[in-house]
Amino acid sequence: MDARLRGVLAPVLTPFNADLSPDAQRLARFCRWLLTHGCAAVAPFGTTSEANSLSVDERERLLDTILEDGVPAGRLLPGTGACALTDAVRLTTQAVRHGCAGVLMLPPFYYKAVSDDGFFRFFAEVIERVGDARLRVYLYHFPPVAHVGFTVNLVERLLRAYPRIVAGMKDSSGDFGNTKTMLDAFARGGFDVFVGSERFLLAGMRDGGAGCISATANVNAAAIDRLYQAWRSPEAERLQAEVDAVRGAVEKLPLIPALKAIVAQYAADPAWLTVRPPFVDLAPEQRDALLAQLTALKLAMPDVRG
Amino acid sequence: MDARLRGVLAPVLTPFNADLSPDAQRLARFCRWLLTHGCAAVAPFGTTSEANSLSVDERERLLDTILEDGVPAGRLLPGTGACALTDAVRLTTQAVRHGCAGVLMLPPFYYKAVSDDGFFRFFAEVIERVGDARLRVYLYHFPPVAHVGFTVNLVERLLRAYPRIVAGMKDSSGDFGNTKTMLDAFARGGFDVFVGSERFLLAGMRDGGAGCISATANVNAAAIDRLYQAWRSPEAERLQAEVDAVRGAVEKLPLIPALKAIVAQYAADPAWLTVRPPFVDLAPEQRDALLAQLTALKLAMPDVRG
Repeated sequence: MDARLRGVLAPVLTPFNADLSPDAQRLARFCRWLLTHGCAAVAPFGTTSEANSLSVDERERLLDTILEDGVPAGRLLPGTGACALTDAVRLTTQAVRHGCAGVLMLPPFYYKAVSDDGFFRFFAEVIERVGDARLRVYLYHFPPVAHVGFTVNLVERLLRAYPRIVAGMKDSSGDFGNTKTMLDAFARGGFDVFVGSERFLLAGMRDGGAGCISATANVNAAAIDRLYQAWRSPEAERLQAEVDAVRGAVEKLPLIPALKAIVAQYAADPAWLTVRPPFVDLAPEQRDALLAQLTALKLAMPDVRG
Repeated sequence: MDARLRGVLAPVLTPFNADLSPDAQRLARFCRWLLTHGCAAVAPFGTTSEANSLSVDERERLLDTILEDGVPAGRLLPGTGACALTDAVRLTTQAVRHGCAGVLMLPPFYYKAVSDDGFFRFFAEVIERVGDARLRVYLYHFPPVAHVGFTVNLVERLLRAYPRIVAGMKDSSGDFGNTKTMLDAFARGGFDVFVGSERFLLAGMRDGGAGCISATANVNAAAIDRLYQAWRSPEAERLQAEVDAVRGAVEKLPLIPALKAIVAQYAADPAWLTVRPPFVDLAPEQRDALLAQLTALKLAMPDVRG
C-alpha cells in the first residue's frame, strides 16, 4: 500500500520579489511553516499559487529550491497540469523524479470544445511519457475557472487504464453534488477525493472524502485541521462554522491578494503583498477591513515568518 | 509611417511529426505557400495553430526555423500572448528582435476574475520589459474561448499609454456589434481592427476595418483575398456568399482537425492529419463528408505541398 495523502493541504501562495521574480527561499520557509501548523502536505503551483502566471522554468527552479531547502518530497503535491503536453510531461517528470507524493493536474484549459476522448488522450500521453510507476495523479476539477473539467465517464476511463497511477481528485467545482457523485462512484475503489474548499470538508468526510486542498489553508490550516481530525466528534459542526466564518471574510475579496495581505500582516513582512499581473493589490481600505474582521474572528498564525 | 498589416492573414496550422513534435520545415513550406496564395501575412501561433498546446521552447524554435527558411519577418504576426508574464515577454522579445511586423497577444487567460486594471498592468509590464519602439501589439479578443477579453476602456487606456505600440485588434468575439464598437471608437486613430472570421469581412471593411485573420484562410485565402480586394465592387456580396459557404462547411466540425484534414487531402500528405492532444482526429465519415462538400463548392488549393 502507498502512504496516501490525507488531511489538509494548502495550495501554497507564491511570494515575489520587487521585480516580480518568484522568491524561492521565502516560499520554502512558508512551506515549512505550513507543514508544522496544520498542513499534512503542501500543494505548490496551484491556482492560489499564481502558478499559471509562472513559466515552466520558474516552476522547475522553485520546486528544486523547496526540496533543497528541506521540504520533504513525500509531503509535496505540486501542480503540473499545463495547456501544452510537453510542459505537463516536463513538470510531472521532475516531480516524480524527486519522489513527490503526487501531482495535481489541471486539464489543458485553453481549448474549450474538447471531448472526453481528447482529455483522455492528453492524460494517457502524459502518463505514458513520464513512464514511472511511482507517479500518482490527482485530477484537478475546477470548471468555474478552467471552464473545462472531468466527467464521471472520463475519470472511470482513466482509472481503468491507469488504476494505481490515477489516485484522486481535487473537486473545486463549488458544487457538493458533483463531489458526492465522484465519492459515490470511486471512493471505495481507493480514489481519494479532496474538497476544494473547507466549506465542504465535513460533508466530504462524512461521504468518504480524504480531506481538503483549499486556498484558505494558507492562513487557517490549524483550525481546518482541527475540524479534519474531529469530524466524527460532536464538536464538528461548531468547528465547521468557525472555519466557514474565516473563509467568508476572505472570499468576499479577490482571493489571492487577500490571502497575501493576511500573510504580510501576520508575518510582519510587506514583501508578501506583491502579486504578479494580471492580479492587482487590494485597495488599502479593503485590506484594513479584512484584517479587522479576521482580528475579530481571532485568526492566529503563530510564528509565521516571511 | 509604418508599413501596416492589411488584408487576409492565416493563423497557420502547425504540422506535427508522428511523435507529436512540431514539424518546422513543413510549417515553413506551408507559410510560403499561403503568402503566394492570398495571404498578406501569416500569423503563426494562433488558436488555430494549436499554439496553446505548444511549449515556449517549441514556439521559439519554430519561429527561428520559419525565418531561417525564408519567410519574411515583415509578413509575420506571431502569437505571443501567454498566461505567464515571463513567457509573454520572452516570446514577444524574440519576435521584435527578428523584426516581425507585429505580435498578436491573447490576454493571460487562466485567471478569470481579472479587472481591466490587472490586464492593463500585464500589458504595460510586457511592453516595458520588451522595451523596443519597433514593437506593434495587436490585441487578440476571443471571449468564446479565452473567457476573458478587452473592453473599450481597456483598449483606450492602452492606446493612451502606448499610442504607437498598441496597433490593432483581432476581434474573434463572433459579435459584429463589438467589432463595430471598436471600429467606431478607434479605427480613425490608426488602430487596425481585423475581423476574426471572413463572415464579417465585408461588414468590417465597410466600417473601416483592416482585413481578417481567420482560421479558414488556411484553406481558402485566395477567395477571401478576392473579397478583400473587391469589397467596394458590385461583386462583393457574391464573393462574401462564396467564402461563407466554405466556412459553413468547415465550421460544422471541430475546426482544427477539419482544416488539417483539408490540407492533408489537397496536399496529398497524410502527415497533416496529426493533431496534438487534447484534440482528436475527425472520424473518417466526417472527413469524407467534409471533403465531398468542399469538392462540390469547388475549393481549390493549387500547388499546395505538405
